[in-house]
Amino acid sequence: MAEDVSGGDLSRLRQLNALALIRALQGRPPLTLTELARRTGLSRASTEDVARELLRKGWLAEAEPAPGGVGRPARRYRFRAEAGRVLGLDIGGHNVRATLADLDGDVASAARVAVTPEMGRAERLEAVDRAVLACLEQGGLTGADVWASGVGTTGLVDGAGKVMLSEALPEWTGVDLAAHVRRLAPAPVLVENDSKLAALAECWRGVARYAKDMVFLLAGLRTGAGLVIDGKLHRGFAGASGEIGALPALGWIRAQEHLVKAAGGEAGDVFAAARAGERAAVTAVRRYVRDLALGASALVLALDPQMVVVGGGYSRSADVLIEPLRRELDRWCIRTPEVRMSALGDEAVVLGAVRLALDHVEERVLDGRTPLVSHL
Amino acid sequence: MAEDVSGGDLSRLRQLNALALIRALQGRPPLTLTELARRTGLSRASTEDVARELLRKGWLAEAEPAPGGVGRPARRYRFRAEAGRVLGLDIGGHNVRATLADLDGDVASAARVAVTPEMGRAERLEAVDRAVLACLEQGGLTGADVWASGVGTTGLVDGAGKVMLSEALPEWTGVDLAAHVRRLAPAPVLVENDSKLAALAECWRGVARYAKDMVFLLAGLRTGAGLVIDGKLHRGFAGASGEIGALPALGWIRAQEHLVKAAGGEAGDVFAAARAGERAAVTAVRRYVRDLALGASALVLALDPQMVVVGGGYSRSADVLIEPLRRELDRWCIRTPEVRMSALGDEAVVLGAVRLALDHVEERVLDGRTPLVSHL
Repeated sequence: MAEDVSGGDLSRLRQLNALALIRALQGRPPLTLTELARRTGLSRASTEDVARELLRKGWLAEAEPAPGGVGRPARRYRFRAEAGRVLGLDIGGHNVRATLADLDGDVASAARVAVTPEMGRAERLEAVDRAVLACLEQGGLTGADVWASGVGTTGLVDGAGKVMLSEALPEWTGVDLAAHVRRLAPAPVLVENDSKLAALAECWRGVARYAKDMVFLLAGLRTGAGLVIDGKLHRGFAGASGEIGALPALGWIRAQEHLVKAAGGEAGDVFAAARAGERAAVTAVRRYVRDLALGASALVLALDPQMVVVGGGYSRSADVLIEPLRRELDRWCIRTPEVRMSALGDEAVVLGAVRLALDHVEERVLDGRTPLVSHL
Repeated sequence: MAEDVSGGDLSRLRQLNALALIRALQGRPPLTLTELARRTGLSRASTEDVARELLRKGWLAEAEPAPGGVGRPARRYRFRAEAGRVLGLDIGGHNVRATLADLDGDVASAARVAVTPEMGRAERLEAVDRAVLACLEQGGLTGADVWASGVGTTGLVDGAGKVMLSEALPEWTGVDLAAHVRRLAPAPVLVENDSKLAALAECWRGVARYAKDMVFLLAGLRTGAGLVIDGKLHRGFAGASGEIGALPALGWIRAQEHLVKAAGGEAGDVFAAARAGERAAVTAVRRYVRDLALGASALVLALDPQMVVVGGGYSRSADVLIEPLRRELDRWCIRTPEVRMSALGDEAVVLGAVRLALDHVEERVLDGRTPLVSHL
């Protein structure tokens, strides 16, 4: 069965096979060579060959043999998720969250620094520094240990990691977040809008794990959306996808006002009052849901997604929110998709930021730009 | 440089390499082995090996040597687009169009049969039969020569080729178009909504050739949309994407009425009257554009596409349509994309149907479901 294959083609094939092996082991229990070959569809000889190379380069390690069984147990291999680290950041109005994760995406350390919506640029960036340094210190690492960073923030973000437009935070338009974070960890930095990262997180570790097409609704002090299409985050040509709120006819501009008017103070309190049956609150929530559903219906009719996931601060009030939202969607949509509440809570954006950084690491492996190198 | 590679891995690699060679030659001038190797990034040895196999199987042929030059000219190879045929069909209210194309997508023969919007199901299907048979006869072929068929029609279409819902054509809901067309040509039949196929055609041979994300607007007696996202037609979970017209707040339901009211008879005449400066017509067109732009803005804000392409019957009136539409989009959108008129006219849907059939042929090659077989 042996045939002549030239060096160039073979190294590309080997790169793909190496990634197939890594993906079969990432975040999963160890496997024997026989199991790996079956899982990847590669021949036993190729599996052995590629596994040997990955072992040597530090991507795989030998695992403890499985207990029990007769005779000498077959060797099992595991992915060395600890070989590298990625950094995730969520820079919001009330909190800055930093998370270090291994190459499986499992959290190694995390830190949170409280901020206020009114803070200026310098103060908020200083909070970013503190969160990142606390997180690195906890993990016993320095910025040089980070392979890639993902950053989530409110507003529109350009492809180079600069905030193009932020209405929610003062002095935030124009800030070069990629450059700022690179000073703390010199690896590549990817910056993205927070609703988009929350959408990514829901498809990775949230309620939308099995949905290829998904609309994420951010329901909180701000209303926003993130789209996952064909399993990939949809950014849009200039990163401005999901901005349906700009169209007055679709209700998102005024949605929040119903709650504010009824509450006097904290909009979130209206949900508690509505739950208790207070008439003004019930009316306010009904009007809020009606306006939220208008924009959501436009997204559903445009994309016909498999699922709508509701996240953000108000997703804690699922009991008074979800059923009315489903009914309103039924009113406008040709096919109402499954509507689910986020289960990730306040961690959605920072988790999405970790996923963004991991995607970058994996893409570079696939592109062959970063050969599989030793990080032992 | 020779290494042992098992048979299984190699055949997958060879399949990919074969497709790379085919893609380098499809719809392009012949190339020498040296040029092919450079174009595909494969080694000279692999290129020669794969080309020999493709020649033997009838996918490639030797081309005439290039004229001029000294010494014996190097052999050049071309893709045998004539090795197979695909069928494209557009079943509409006024016309049924059938087109046979080769594997480059170049039209080999075409036929058109006039129908009316009022016709019942049996009559319209009979027109389909006549169009297909005329097209096959012109090309000197039978249904057995067709490798795959693509069909475009109004309404929502399910994944199995059945019309789920048609409001424009009587007795059309429930018709199993895939089964009907398979009787004429026993190859696989793909059925899709006409706006979606027009979108596909624009990205293939129309004005959106270089756009990865594109919104197609069908502007005619009906208003519809088709979306291309990341270079692929976006169908949606149940094929119901782009149906933004269902939301009354977005204006598409009433858009058409402004023209009908002003015209008395043919809505299209209003554009001529508006061009001549007739006041009622100018107002009607302005209102039509305003409503068309509302739904279009929702799609643009949702997706942030690179381009909006306007097709359908009214796209002939670009002079009174495009600039006002652009201005209205500017009013609502965060970033107004490039707005272009379709250049494919009435052929857009049938061309999209051809592309759908070609996609199916190519996907089967990539999946390895259909090995490269001889059709000499």
